[in-house]
Amino acid sequence: MSIPAPCRHNGPVDRSNHDTSDRSKTVGSDFLQLTLAQAPPGGMADWLTQQLRQAITDGRLPVGSQLPPTRVLASELRVSRGVVTEAYRRLSEDGHVEGRGRHGTVVVAAPMLPTGPTQADTPVAAPSAEALFTPTPGTDIFDRIRQAPARIDLFPGVPDLTAFPRSAWLRAERAVLRQLSAADFGYGDPRGTPTLRRAVAGWLARNRGIRVDPAEVLIVAGTAQALGLVGQVLIGHGIRQMAVEDPGSLGVRQQLASTGLATPPVPVDDRGIHVAALRASGVRAVAVTPAHQYPTGVVLEGERRRELMRWAHDGGMILEDDYDAEHRYDRPPVPALRSMLPDRVCYTGSVSKLLAPALRVGWVLAPPAYREDLVEAKRYADLGNAVLPQLVLAHLMESGALERHLRLLRRRHRRRRDAMIEAVKTYLPGAVVHGAAAGLHLLVTFPGGFSDVDLAAAAYTRGVKTQPLSWCSQRPTRPGLVLGYAARTPTDITEGVALIGDALRHLR
Amino acid sequence: MSIPAPCRHNGPVDRSNHDTSDRSKTVGSDFLQLTLAQAPPGGMADWLTQQLRQAITDGRLPVGSQLPPTRVLASELRVSRGVVTEAYRRLSEDGHVEGRGRHGTVVVAAPMLPTGPTQADTPVAAPSAEALFTPTPGTDIFDRIRQAPARIDLFPGVPDLTAFPRSAWLRAERAVLRQLSAADFGYGDPRGTPTLRRAVAGWLARNRGIRVDPAEVLIVAGTAQALGLVGQVLIGHGIRQMAVEDPGSLGVRQQLASTGLATPPVPVDDRGIHVAALRASGVRAVAVTPAHQYPTGVVLEGERRRELMRWAHDGGMILEDDYDAEHRYDRPPVPALRSMLPDRVCYTGSVSKLLAPALRVGWVLAPPAYREDLVEAKRYADLGNAVLPQLVLAHLMESGALERHLRLLRRRHRRRRDAMIEAVKTYLPGAVVHGAAAGLHLLVTFPGGFSDVDLAAAAYTRGVKTQPLSWCSQRPTRPGLVLGYAARTPTDITEGVALIGDALRHLR
Repeated sequence: MSIPAPCRHNGPVDRSNHDTSDRSKTVGSDFLQLTLAQAPPGGMADWLTQQLRQAITDGRLPVGSQLPPTRVLASELRVSRGVVTEAYRRLSEDGHVEGRGRHGTVVVAAPMLPTGPTQADTPVAAPSAEALFTPTPGTDIFDRIRQAPARIDLFPGVPDLTAFPRSAWLRAERAVLRQLSAADFGYGDPRGTPTLRRAVAGWLARNRGIRVDPAEVLIVAGTAQALGLVGQVLIGHGIRQMAVEDPGSLGVRQQLASTGLATPPVPVDDRGIHVAALRASGVRAVAVTPAHQYPTGVVLEGERRRELMRWAHDGGMILEDDYDAEHRYDRPPVPALRSMLPDRVCYTGSVSKLLAPALRVGWVLAPPAYREDLVEAKRYADLGNAVLPQLVLAHLMESGALERHLRLLRRRHRRRRDAMIEAVKTYLPGAVVHGAAAGLHLLVTFPGGFSDVDLAAAAYTRGVKTQPLSWCSQRPTRPGLVLGYAARTPTDITEGVALIGDALRHLR
Repeated sequence: MSIPAPCRHNGPVDRSNHDTSDRSKTVGSDFLQLTLAQAPPGGMADWLTQQLRQAITDGRLPVGSQLPPTRVLASELRVSRGVVTEAYRRLSEDGHVEGRGRHGTVVVAAPMLPTGPTQADTPVAAPSAEALFTPTPGTDIFDRIRQAPARIDLFPGVPDLTAFPRSAWLRAERAVLRQLSAADFGYGDPRGTPTLRRAVAGWLARNRGIRVDPAEVLIVAGTAQALGLVGQVLIGHGIRQMAVEDPGSLGVRQQLASTGLATPPVPVDDRGIHVAALRASGVRAVAVTPAHQYPTGVVLEGERRRELMRWAHDGGMILEDDYDAEHRYDRPPVPALRSMLPDRVCYTGSVSKLLAPALRVGWVLAPPAYREDLVEAKRYADLGNAVLPQLVLAHLMESGALERHLRLLRRRHRRRRDAMIEAVKTYLPGAVVHGAAAGLHLLVTFPGGFSDVDLAAAAYTRGVKTQPLSWCSQRPTRPGLVLGYAARTPTDITEGVALIGDALRHLR
């Protein structure tokens, strides 16, 4: 304990033999309230250095002040002079003090304290609906949306997260930690661990009709990283534009644009992307979601698939974003384009919709022409994904636990989808539901006459978070909302849609 | 089981009623060896689609061949015609087949099989010493080194990985999984979880003398990502060059160069980086390792620290790579430069040397001018680190487990360092040891007259992996080896150094 001021002259460290006039120049140990008893035995120099550093930090020893001569402080503290010399030496080494010959030792630099209160814990003030829902959202929109509180969150993009298989994950982690060699904790293969690459190849064969050599699988930190790295590599190969579906994912468009690619829109109709328009645009690369178009939910129709493959065969590059293909309710999903055109399709998938976005694990299968550059880009990005989660995931994939989880999710999601369709019929008469055969969300469009951004804002003021369709569109579109159902209970869904209905009535 | 060829006409599916001449045009189910008994009850259409897809894949149904009419196949298989129609419809939707009116259904595209044997499992042929140790290593050198087998691995860069606290990690993971909310499994804060950012701020205060608001801590995927992101941001701010220490880390130099920054060398002497040379160079940014210079092990001397701070104060930008500062054996490490100059120092650290590189977790404290851009760069890089490992790490930091682990490592590393110093004295007479007061490696230099790349190659042929000093140098240097001791037993270290001694004798 430090000694209260009135008593300090009787304290154990007040053995000053210099008078008060000295203190105007130098600082005595009494002023610092050094309590020798706190010093650990044998650790005097450490302790003294720390005490002095602290005093410099909090301003008791301001910059420009002079430390007591070593002899004086040593005698005050009743320690050997070597202890004080050592402490001063360390402070000098830190850059805090400087020896100035006969002017003694002077404080020259203080550690900086953070200014103001911490922001990490301060709850962000809820943004107003108008501030949040603007016609052209910024690059931080998804962070802002995530942080915005809402009683019923129907913003699309996540599976049922309450279903995350915590016990299976922990069991798999235990098994992995038991088997791991010490070398596995070192720097790893930037392409991913061989175990996960094999497991992903198996998963893709069973679930997506893709046959791929595990050596061609690149493990990445989710689809976001995949898009960023592929964009970088394409730019390195002279590609400056990547066409995107319109409507299409705002996140994907922002991510591609961040690499410097232009993202011209190609229309999507009820058969999928309009390949003739793509061909007419002259753009040589396109990002598509053939298994379940985002946000319309359209499955790319057979003739369009063939057309797209012919386009690719004629020199086009397809980036196939297979984001939620496993979530198909009526029958198995169509195989990935990649299964038929490995040389022209760069395929990417992730566990974000299968397990959890928080895991940040995905994969890329790149055409041979880009494969090496992509590995190099991944190496420079982060030297490869973290190893433990890769191995745990591989364990879940190979034990069948992930497929069981997917079956559970499908059953649950289907009930929630049905609840949402029912609620839309009831509370949003006149609205059209799109893309109900698969996925984690529905697109609901309206006859028009108002802005869907205003509708989303009005829903938000009623406690419901949704995504306006126009955020997904570069060209004018009918008003619509993209509504996630996977992560909410039927009760919440019904109430949420009813509140949207209320917002809609007040808007018109 | 499929039916062996001689018996197939008696098999359950050989109910063909078309003659052999038909088979030249269309393909019968006998040819496909469809074994109806394998079909799961109620899953006939799924099963048939899969079987046909498989046959298209492996060439039994080549592109251009015609499928049997639905009526025919249905009758052969004794299934309803609807099952076959459904299977054909799905194959058409996949893009594999096309209906051509009276020409029937024709195979138009086959999934591609990977060519050649898988490479993922094939052990890489050990590279020759000459191929591995070249004067100017390529960008994949660390991957090549890692994959190169060697009996005794003295390549620097990792702590004792056998000491990884597996049980503590698993216990922390269990606790985290128990406490986590469902929302925590969703998309997270790109800056990192508040819990880990608080824990890192605490760690930095206790161990590195840094006082920082947790809101200013950015969690990244290791120092590699930190360097890449900082490089990107600086380039965005018009900075084109970042001076580096010479000798200095090859990995750091490659990482910075990958962002497009030039990396002019500034000499390091036995007091640390030569600040006068830095000032004279006119470069406005520098990457330094003040606590324990890599690879020389020099602690930046007090006057040099002050000089460097004055340089920064005059407009310079310091990237402080605090890679292994916690590993100091004689006394506490000097505080980070960041603790005194938060506006001019971009600080980065990681758990790679504290726990394991495989975790891919690090942190950056950026000056205010770059903070927002850095968060944006991190968002685009991967939307933020994976959440679970962040929370587990926070748990280890806050429970004191990480500090206990560090104490254990220090004791163990010190013994290994002593064994290496002893071995160098015995087996490498005339060699000079540098930087023994801290860290995970020693630098050993030799009087000269030979190439250290040749020495490293000769050591490698004797089963010992090391890093030649010249890889760390942009300008000519004395020959030397950077030798990691932290991850090896004293026995291995002694034997490894003896083998280096043998290599040296044969080289001269």
